[in-house]
Amino acid sequence: MQDISNPDAAFTLDPRLQADTFPVVDLALCRVLLMNDARWPWLILVPRRVGVVELFDLGADDRHRLADEAARVATMLKSFGSAEKTNVATLGNVVRAFHLHVVARSTGDPGWPGPVWGFGARLPYDEPAAEAILRDLRESLR
Amino acid sequence: MQDISNPDAAFTLDPRLQADTFPVVDLALCRVLLMNDARWPWLILVPRRVGVVELFDLGADDRHRLADEAARVATMLKSFGSAEKTNVATLGNVVRAFHLHVVARSTGDPGWPGPVWGFGARLPYDEPAAEAILRDLRESLR
Repeated sequence: MQDISNPDAAFTLDPRLQADTFPVVDLALCRVLLMNDARWPWLILVPRRVGVVELFDLGADDRHRLADEAARVATMLKSFGSAEKTNVATLGNVVRAFHLHVVARSTGDPGWPGPVWGFGARLPYDEPAAEAILRDLRESLR
Repeated sequence: MQDISNPDAAFTLDPRLQADTFPVVDLALCRVLLMNDARWPWLILVPRRVGVVELFDLGADDRHRLADEAARVATMLKSFGSAEKTNVATLGNVVRAFHLHVVARSTGDPGWPGPVWGFGARLPYDEPAAEAILRDLRESLR
């Protein structure tokens, strides 16, 4: 039975996002996912809200929370791998369910200084590497 | 003489951003620029603050204002050209001065569904087209 007093209750993660990522942690608004691509430290923030496609579909409070959580995650991710720059973006041309990418970039990384989306072939983590980075990310975001 | 009571007073637009764009309007926080590329309706928001590189360099109030102005500009831009999706992103791998792209995208546009950054060669507006779109954008954002 759906708990209609809780706006998160009806939230479900888009199956394509689920297939391409590992869950990291839930912040106040967003579920944080790790993209299964070892080429860059690449997180995705998904507001646990139903029917959000565009940035302007979020109410003002949620929009501000999203900006705060993106800033927090970008701060963490930049120091995490000593990155040079973070890229923060919502595209959604293919997967329409709203999601915000936070990617740590550095000179000489694959595709630098171009964008990561659509660049080359994904390089999945092996299992120990995924476990190690997920443990570190969860500690950093707790 | 610099007016130190006004945090905007020392702001200057990055010369590369200036060279690639037309000024549209100043909102409360951001200068709005039109990218001189007729392939997509493409605006850039630049907070009139000094020394901002990353999203997390903005204080919380400015971060929330940026999110609000991005949502406002994306709403306008989506209806403006009947676009299918807006892309909102800050990369800054080349031009480090903080700037936020808001681009209106649709099925079949150049590069769809990939990102616009680094895609093909820019198509500058001719003068009448630039004047017409700038007039419409200024009316929509006033």
